[in-house]
Amino acid sequence: MIEIREAQKSDFPRVIELITELAIFEKEPDAVEISIEELEANGLGENALFKCFVGLYEGKIEGISICYPRFSTWKGKTIHLEDLIVTENMRGKGLGKALYDKVLIYAHEQGVRRVEWVVLDWNKNAINFYERTGATMIKDWYLAQMDAQSLENYINNL
Amino acid sequence: MIEIREAQKSDFPRVIELITELAIFEKEPDAVEISIEELEANGLGENALFKCFVGLYEGKIEGISICYPRFSTWKGKTIHLEDLIVTENMRGKGLGKALYDKVLIYAHEQGVRRVEWVVLDWNKNAINFYERTGATMIKDWYLAQMDAQSLENYINNL
Repeated sequence: MIEIREAQKSDFPRVIELITELAIFEKEPDAVEISIEELEANGLGENALFKCFVGLYEGKIEGISICYPRFSTWKGKTIHLEDLIVTENMRGKGLGKALYDKVLIYAHEQGVRRVEWVVLDWNKNAINFYERTGATMIKDWYLAQMDAQSLENYINNL
Repeated sequence: MIEIREAQKSDFPRVIELITELAIFEKEPDAVEISIEELEANGLGENALFKCFVGLYEGKIEGISICYPRFSTWKGKTIHLEDLIVTENMRGKGLGKALYDKVLIYAHEQGVRRVEWVVLDWNKNAINFYERTGATMIKDWYLAQMDAQSLENYINNL
């Protein structure tokens, strides 16, 4: 009943629904500034910035996983898992694991020395799942971010 | 006395020296598994996975900054600052800020809505510097990593 495949252009309206659902779960409902056009422009074709897998349950897209390459100056090319989303009422059916496995299989095919992602510290279910698969949680780094307005301010004052 | 430019092939032996120095500072002296050939193959040319700037002081490379694009499903294309390194005895001369500024100028030219990186929670000097420039430290996410051996084990047991 589960099928995992790469996203096609016609899937992106559903993909953005799932992205928005995750933002609400992560308590940042207004954080999604991206448009469908931007997703399509960056997720399809030769110069795509990311790879999107969709997970179908009984023929309907109920989850996605999104990943892209990064580069560690210690380990070389890595794969970053950006999003792993299953719509709330379809959890517990194995779709999340199938989408996660697909990214790990892809990373293994690419021969990378590391797969990496981030997880909210209160998301115990996710952390337990990741640790059972052999991942390590690293707790002594902060994420640092400069947003568009702060960047603009900083550049203007150089 | 300070000059910042993109790295050329002949700079990479010095680049890897600085990467190794940072690993020692971060208390992971054996973590650097990358070779010069891998750095060159991924840091030069059309399909480069990262961009490397070198910082010269009186004509000698004393620092580097390394960045690459990522993709946020909330913000679209972002720039990730992977490494910002100044050799220990050349700190305090403005080289680090010049290398940091170069990455932010590059990110601004690319029109991204976010620049991001990570910082060790005990590295107060770095955190203070970043915050003064308008960056935000986000403290409620863990980094998750699966290394090559764990990936191999996981794939073999699927």
